[in-house]
Amino acid sequence: MKVLMNNELIDRKEAKVDIDDRGYQFGDGIYEVIRVYQSKMFTLKQHLDRLYHSAEKIDLTIPYSQAKLTTMLEELISVNHLATGTVYLQFSRGTQTPRNHIYKADLTANLVSYTTEKVRDPKEFRKGIATITVFDERWFHCDIKSLNLLGNLMATNQAAKSGAEEGIFYRSSEEVTECSHSNVSIIKDGILITHPADCLILNGITRQTILKVAKQHNIPVEERPFSLAELKTADEVFISSVSKEITAVAKVDDVVIGNGEIGPICEKLLTYYAEEIENDCGIKLKE
Amino acid sequence: MKVLMNNELIDRKEAKVDIDDRGYQFGDGIYEVIRVYQSKMFTLKQHLDRLYHSAEKIDLTIPYSQAKLTTMLEELISVNHLATGTVYLQFSRGTQTPRNHIYKADLTANLVSYTTEKVRDPKEFRKGIATITVFDERWFHCDIKSLNLLGNLMATNQAAKSGAEEGIFYRSSEEVTECSHSNVSIIKDGILITHPADCLILNGITRQTILKVAKQHNIPVEERPFSLAELKTADEVFISSVSKEITAVAKVDDVVIGNGEIGPICEKLLTYYAEEIENDCGIKLKE
Repeated sequence: MKVLMNNELIDRKEAKVDIDDRGYQFGDGIYEVIRVYQSKMFTLKQHLDRLYHSAEKIDLTIPYSQAKLTTMLEELISVNHLATGTVYLQFSRGTQTPRNHIYKADLTANLVSYTTEKVRDPKEFRKGIATITVFDERWFHCDIKSLNLLGNLMATNQAAKSGAEEGIFYRSSEEVTECSHSNVSIIKDGILITHPADCLILNGITRQTILKVAKQHNIPVEERPFSLAELKTADEVFISSVSKEITAVAKVDDVVIGNGEIGPICEKLLTYYAEEIENDCGIKLKE
Repeated sequence: MKVLMNNELIDRKEAKVDIDDRGYQFGDGIYEVIRVYQSKMFTLKQHLDRLYHSAEKIDLTIPYSQAKLTTMLEELISVNHLATGTVYLQFSRGTQTPRNHIYKADLTANLVSYTTEKVRDPKEFRKGIATITVFDERWFHCDIKSLNLLGNLMATNQAAKSGAEEGIFYRSSEEVTECSHSNVSIIKDGILITHPADCLILNGITRQTILKVAKQHNIPVEERPFSLAELKTADEVFISSVSKEITAVAKVDDVVIGNGEIGPICEKLLTYYAEEIENDCGIKLKE
């Protein structure tokens, strides 16, 4: 397996970073995870746009154009013979000695990127997962896809320890925001409701794609905060992320959603989403 | 220069970590910075206690006893011939492949520790620094000394760009919490006022030492939130940290504090603090 480190493809076992990499000391960096189907990156442009926006928000300069970075990622996928999986990429602000909160103006950001094989199994989307609700104690820049992920991963691990697959965050007003590593949406009376893309959530590329296909197929969409009570009395609940696509939620804490199975609108969205993959990647999925 | 990586002293240039170190991908770890005077670590026990508490709060196991870790840090100081400076140490949760929010139960935390020379210059404490106030958008676990420092460093850099040395955080209620990499205290009518050690601030070891010596010398102390207005109309303002000890603040935004010079209680605290260094380290400072 090869790893892309800056502009070089190197062997996985040699992929190491200096201890003064600011990513290691401060989580001073940003990342993306891009889904790959049949060796094609899905919604690549949207991921790159978000990456460059995240960079801008933390005043980090990505030392490559989107075109150059695209070529580099394509080479990585090719050299690793990745068919179905993900490309992970992160940029830290650079390596700076001695450690200092104040970053030097002339730092060059460090890129690390690698591929991971991951099958696409639509049964996983339909089985209906268990979730728990978790008080959202994270910062107010959740719109930045940064390497500061301790709040997210503590919630994910809390969920895992209680036998659930995901933690659904709510803020002090009982407003549901997103999940610990996905977005959450509800269906009520035929309307798809999801938190607006403000600083309290990461505007998932999958979330954006779902909203796009929902609108194309005349499913009414409301981007507004919804409460814990609305969550638990919804007709359907689903989470969305690059790998989980649209995954039906069967349970929130002790409350069974609907009849505990994937609902009709969720099922439709899965179909529309698969069509979008086929269109965007120019492939035919085998389900 | 030698770096302590896990239980080994290695050459600085070989000090590298794997790209799947969770510290690099999630900021999943904790750290301490300990002041060294004449080769002696100051308030070592307090730093180690806080380190183990931070670890506990994020469910990370430090694979050494405090006694063992102390010996390792002493060897590091000795091999690097450090007289006056700091010891930086961090533990990440460990190296885990493939990347996963959910941490494995059997991970061994990775230690990185090194020394940095840093003179002690009391003139710096007395000169009176400029500060700006910054809206505190960080998470609600600031009591954990974690590697998730993006919120802190963005504020530090904002301060630096505006010509100030420190950013003083306030939450939405205009309650002053702490600074981007230090604590802040005010003096009003002879009383030392500083934010209580709850989840909104890091309970600085320097802060704790100052409160201890203040009480010993009958300076009244109030640990309570104070407002931006109280900050700007205080008789004296100072920040405190391991390296800055007690540093007088001359300016908050455009407001000059007192007469813009170090005040009488700040001056007293500097003396008491220096005595505490001498007692704790068993040394005699040359001022």
